[in-house]
Amino acid sequence: MVTAPSDRTTVRRLAERGVYDREVIDAILDEALYCHVGVVVDGGPVVIPTIHARSGDTLYLHGSPANRMLRSMRSGEQVCVTVTVLDGIVLARAPFSSSMNYRSVVLFGTPRPVTSADEKREAFRALTEHVTPGRWADSRLPNDREEKATLVVAIPIAEASAKVRTGPPHDDEDDYDLPIWAGIIPLRMVAGEPIPDPARVSDLPVPSYLVGYRSVAG
Amino acid sequence: MVTAPSDRTTVRRLAERGVYDREVIDAILDEALYCHVGVVVDGGPVVIPTIHARSGDTLYLHGSPANRMLRSMRSGEQVCVTVTVLDGIVLARAPFSSSMNYRSVVLFGTPRPVTSADEKREAFRALTEHVTPGRWADSRLPNDREEKATLVVAIPIAEASAKVRTGPPHDDEDDYDLPIWAGIIPLRMVAGEPIPDPARVSDLPVPSYLVGYRSVAG
Repeated sequence: MVTAPSDRTTVRRLAERGVYDREVIDAILDEALYCHVGVVVDGGPVVIPTIHARSGDTLYLHGSPANRMLRSMRSGEQVCVTVTVLDGIVLARAPFSSSMNYRSVVLFGTPRPVTSADEKREAFRALTEHVTPGRWADSRLPNDREEKATLVVAIPIAEASAKVRTGPPHDDEDDYDLPIWAGIIPLRMVAGEPIPDPARVSDLPVPSYLVGYRSVAG
Repeated sequence: MVTAPSDRTTVRRLAERGVYDREVIDAILDEALYCHVGVVVDGGPVVIPTIHARSGDTLYLHGSPANRMLRSMRSGEQVCVTVTVLDGIVLARAPFSSSMNYRSVVLFGTPRPVTSADEKREAFRALTEHVTPGRWADSRLPNDREEKATLVVAIPIAEASAKVRTGPPHDDEDDYDLPIWAGIIPLRMVAGEPIPDPARVSDLPVPSYLVGYRSVAG
């Protein structure tokens, strides 16, 4: 059995939903298109959505050097990165027993600024490929100015836990015979048809790596 | 022009994306099915996903009295509630200019524990109706035990800002003629067919308020 890597990553509420396998954690980090990063600024919490990407045992975040969240990270402060994938609404007969099906990861760490050009390039690649696999090889790659204008930080995927709920509702025994529909409404993030940039009408077809991206049927 | 209610809600990075109208803020809070709550625990940030609901000028959160996040809120500490609705992937010719289309809200406040039975009931109603409009009237409503077993906190929607990106990519002028497809992949959270609770096979039809819930066509 895999145990939590630290006290604060131990799932206490509904502990049976806690998962500490790296495989599960990585899969959730890879599926979620963005994360919410928490930092402490002037003693209070600040939570900001941003894109993340995993490369092996490292999670990368990036942004402008003027970004307050990233700036606060350069001072060696801890951060909490949380990703959540919503899978459905769980409707029990009673609201008290109703819930959501979801998969979330909470990762704690102290970000390290990425300074090596090679690692920065790997972070850029991972960030692009995380959101749209296949895109990196079909892009105008970052130039020196852009690399300098982007701050990248790395967080080791060491102190993390996942929390997962699946399956049907669990009602109080007395409630099962009530004439109330109960069950799950499955939810998914799906893509519509790609919309070409209207700035330049061109004959370029939609690239194959984007066809069927997160489609309803997929 | 509506201005930011405080220094920390002023959108600085890409300031043109900052929106301070309550109407816009409320619409995003209402559409997002869940939020990420940031609290400071032992000096470090902790970010947890949870369901929220708005009722007028108040945002409600709820959970078990044993919930660490809610417990930390009872001590009068500040929290940051962030919701994000992802609308699409913005593919520029260069990764540096690529982005996401999204609508997010960041709300700061000091939660107030809800003790009045009436307000608690209103919070339960708002939480249920937020996720599945129409469900409250078709539920086995909370009993005394359940009301006591649920901690509810209220946060005034006073110190909040929204950040919104819409529209096509913006590439460097030199990049527009490159033979690289650019544009938007629209994204949406959509529901599949409701799945009845297998615990009790019944003839109850799917209620009308759930039919077409966040459907692709809607």
